[in-house]
Amino acid sequence: MGVKLSSRNMTKSKVPKRNHGVLYNLKAINKLIEKDGPSKVVLITSANVQLRLRDIFDRFFKNMPVIIIPDGEKAKSWRSIEKLLKKFLHLGLDRQALVIAVGGGTVGDSAGFAASIYLRGIKYINVPTTLLAQVDSSHGGKTGIDFENAKNQIGSFYPAIATIIDGEAINSNGLEQIIGGLGEIIKVGLIKDKSILSLLRKESVSTLSRSKKLHKIIKKSIKAKYFYVSKDEKDKGVRQVLNFGHTIGHAIELKYKISHGRAVLIGMVKELEIAERLKLTKPYVRENLLNLYGILGIGFTDKYKADWKAVLKDKKLVGDKIVLPIVVREGVSKLVKIPLLKLKKLI
Amino acid sequence: MGVKLSSRNMTKSKVPKRNHGVLYNLKAINKLIEKDGPSKVVLITSANVQLRLRDIFDRFFKNMPVIIIPDGEKAKSWRSIEKLLKKFLHLGLDRQALVIAVGGGTVGDSAGFAASIYLRGIKYINVPTTLLAQVDSSHGGKTGIDFENAKNQIGSFYPAIATIIDGEAINSNGLEQIIGGLGEIIKVGLIKDKSILSLLRKESVSTLSRSKKLHKIIKKSIKAKYFYVSKDEKDKGVRQVLNFGHTIGHAIELKYKISHGRAVLIGMVKELEIAERLKLTKPYVRENLLNLYGILGIGFTDKYKADWKAVLKDKKLVGDKIVLPIVVREGVSKLVKIPLLKLKKLI
Repeated sequence: MGVKLSSRNMTKSKVPKRNHGVLYNLKAINKLIEKDGPSKVVLITSANVQLRLRDIFDRFFKNMPVIIIPDGEKAKSWRSIEKLLKKFLHLGLDRQALVIAVGGGTVGDSAGFAASIYLRGIKYINVPTTLLAQVDSSHGGKTGIDFENAKNQIGSFYPAIATIIDGEAINSNGLEQIIGGLGEIIKVGLIKDKSILSLLRKESVSTLSRSKKLHKIIKKSIKAKYFYVSKDEKDKGVRQVLNFGHTIGHAIELKYKISHGRAVLIGMVKELEIAERLKLTKPYVRENLLNLYGILGIGFTDKYKADWKAVLKDKKLVGDKIVLPIVVREGVSKLVKIPLLKLKKLI
Repeated sequence: MGVKLSSRNMTKSKVPKRNHGVLYNLKAINKLIEKDGPSKVVLITSANVQLRLRDIFDRFFKNMPVIIIPDGEKAKSWRSIEKLLKKFLHLGLDRQALVIAVGGGTVGDSAGFAASIYLRGIKYINVPTTLLAQVDSSHGGKTGIDFENAKNQIGSFYPAIATIIDGEAINSNGLEQIIGGLGEIIKVGLIKDKSILSLLRKESVSTLSRSKKLHKIIKKSIKAKYFYVSKDEKDKGVRQVLNFGHTIGHAIELKYKISHGRAVLIGMVKELEIAERLKLTKPYVRENLLNLYGILGIGFTDKYKADWKAVLKDKKLVGDKIVLPIVVREGVSKLVKIPLLKLKKLI
């Protein structure tokens, strides 16, 4: 099985508690801008987001210049970043400029990446507007775009100066967007905080966006993510536990062009299966998980198969081994290095 | 004149001495690689450099895969970086890969930038092969490319894990390359260490590459640069003193397509003139400088005029002011904020 990297061993050093700049109300935006004193403020969003959240734009972002980037994964391309950087230049953004990304993960990832390389880095604020972006991609400082069919192949570690999680911004999230967010929420429940799973067992996808417990679930999920991020900002060690479900998930996402969240939901089940065969996880974890999908009303089908080639493109490869997060039991996880040949037989 | 930012005030906090990973012999390369233990090592160089230094390539980089990028400023383009990143991907570089940039500043700047955004950052070693790159661009962690006619508009702060300054690598530098390096060497002499200027007064451009004092001059120049870099890695304060000669220099470089070093040599004279008119510098500094150009055998002509538009693209703009480094007397400098309108009248 190769070297086991227990997460306990990898996190010995005490990390001081820090304010990660997560705020929970868009009303904070004016004070934030005032405090930063930028030379210029520019919004980056997509046409869909602007339309869906016109009320929020009117109230909080009135009179700010807006750059529209493509909706969805199209924003995360080399060409799209080039266009965005040209707009920065033509708007005359200097080193003291501030950009505000308003949108789902693709908006935050691409705007954050552009901000990180424009004039060697200008400041940005992230306002995630999907459940997935609120609990996952807007935290931890990872920016990135896709390249030659490989997800997040190009990017940077470049945290926003603040991330604003506002409940109103996700009120209009559709069913697929809720399911997308649930993938990452259930993931951190499995690897770190099983109380999240207990809370979810009383919910359903169709009513979650109106649930009184949603704010609590989001906060717990963000806290669990920062537990890893703060110990390993550059994603070289324990943070890779957050990759649970993603090695298989990314491969399935690319092959079948399904949403990231759906792919992670499937990837987690597949990776639990592998861990079972390696005798590292008890079958109850996967059975409970499928049961939770049932309670929530998330359809699950076993028809998706990961392509071996896509798995090989995974960033977590170390020579001929792959680092795979293993859920030992609900809320407890570790990293294990597995030889690729062994994994190939198990997929 | 606006707010004066004295470099003394800006550097109050003690910075611990650090090893900046500068080595002075290419023989160190094997040990360095061994210590890092990369999954793969790839060289990045230009056709000219490979031809000129084939002896060095044979002795130190035998059997390593080589990526050839364009010579000169062409390497520093959005398209060229895209091609380079594709090669990284096709060579199967993973997060533990190591790239070694062998060449002048344009090779180091573009290879370093590509390394900084590939998989959110892989390690690189810089082996500068021009005097200019050895004393300047290979130190301080700035990577970058040109964009829409603006120099270094896109880039990152991403230091090499080591920079190797080898005397042999610049033995074959032509006259123009020596003059290019002298621009930055004289600059740090003026702003920080006037003993560099004294050493240069005994040299001539045509014999400098064989001078016994060259190694001493290079080491002093690198030390002076790190004095600022270590206090201000992100170039937000005192480090901007290193920009002396560059605001006008960059504008002239772009307009007349002359080398960076030549442009800085001219830019320094022009910026001293401006400081004289602002009564911030005594005329002797400029007179001594022109005298030094004469001793060294650097031709100087007054025919170049900076374009106002190009000056406005400078990264050191803060709203309607520009931060300009001022040489108070030889070896002593400070930063001064000057309103753009005032500067426009003086150019």
